[in-house]
Amino acid sequence: MYRAQAGHNGIVVWFTGLSSAGKTTICEAVYTELLASGVRAEMLDGDTFRQHLNRDLGFSKEDRDENVRRLGFVARLLARHGVVVLVSAISPYRKVRDEIRASVETFLEVYVNAPLHICEARDVKGLYRKARLGLIQQFTGIDDPYEPPLSPEIECQTDLQSVRQCVESVIDGIGKRLGKAPE
Amino acid sequence: MYRAQAGHNGIVVWFTGLSSAGKTTICEAVYTELLASGVRAEMLDGDTFRQHLNRDLGFSKEDRDENVRRLGFVARLLARHGVVVLVSAISPYRKVRDEIRASVETFLEVYVNAPLHICEARDVKGLYRKARLGLIQQFTGIDDPYEPPLSPEIECQTDLQSVRQCVESVIDGIGKRLGKAPE
Repeated sequence: MYRAQAGHNGIVVWFTGLSSAGKTTICEAVYTELLASGVRAEMLDGDTFRQHLNRDLGFSKEDRDENVRRLGFVARLLARHGVVVLVSAISPYRKVRDEIRASVETFLEVYVNAPLHICEARDVKGLYRKARLGLIQQFTGIDDPYEPPLSPEIECQTDLQSVRQCVESVIDGIGKRLGKAPE
Repeated sequence: MYRAQAGHNGIVVWFTGLSSAGKTTICEAVYTELLASGVRAEMLDGDTFRQHLNRDLGFSKEDRDENVRRLGFVARLLARHGVVVLVSAISPYRKVRDEIRASVETFLEVYVNAPLHICEARDVKGLYRKARLGLIQQFTGIDDPYEPPLSPEIECQTDLQSVRQCVESVIDGIGKRLGKAPE
């Protein structure tokens, strides 16, 4: 019978930040790099989850928290099996992020930070425009709160740093944790 | 940086059958045996999922299908990372089980089969009694349908076979697939 290799315990890398702050861009670049290095990695995206597991959820505080909890539940399962799990989700509320932090062995919070006016100018998905026009409600940063991390392991200031710099700081953070873990 | 070991591609082992047919008993014994053999395994239980990921779901056909789809979604993610995923859920509808079969690389359907009157006599959770008294509705086998698999990879007849025999046939089925997979 197949004998599993002893491995590290996985890491949950949690990208939080406003829409258009650059979470997905950094996350995807980190993912590509991890795969190229032979690291077992997975990407979980908040938007994609809403199309699959979380189709029932809206944008109330309760539903946002439930969305994030379900992401955390799946991330934890994968991390238990040695996967480096990259989660990209606005995840605006501090309390539920900290709940997930407390529930996993290794949690790396990446605060993808850019000022609101920069995110709004980028408006990758055209959602800020819609929110300003009142076409969508409860939009984080406009008429719904965003609670920034108080002490994230990594902060990417995407208005000041290049994507490359951001990716390197995340890869560096992951590398240090993987290095420490028993193999 | 940590270098992942090349592994097999994981398997989804899906235990379907009536309540009290013996799914959990067999599933747990298989899980224990896999871990003892050093196989990376995970158990996903339909009931437990309803307490976490699927708290929003009831027992209509739509909700049962969604329950099973979410189990399938998570099982697929884990299997992609080389985990042998044991899913234990009544999963009464054939169509959605076959959807999941089609979406994963290796799917092993285990039909945990015992006649209704035997399951009802066992009534491990006291649910048949409640269903007969009309205290719960839409109970599979009583007032909700169960569609048995047409050609399951493995059938455990728990009224005729011992737990040991059932467990061995499942372990044997898993072993054959793991043996075939590239390492």
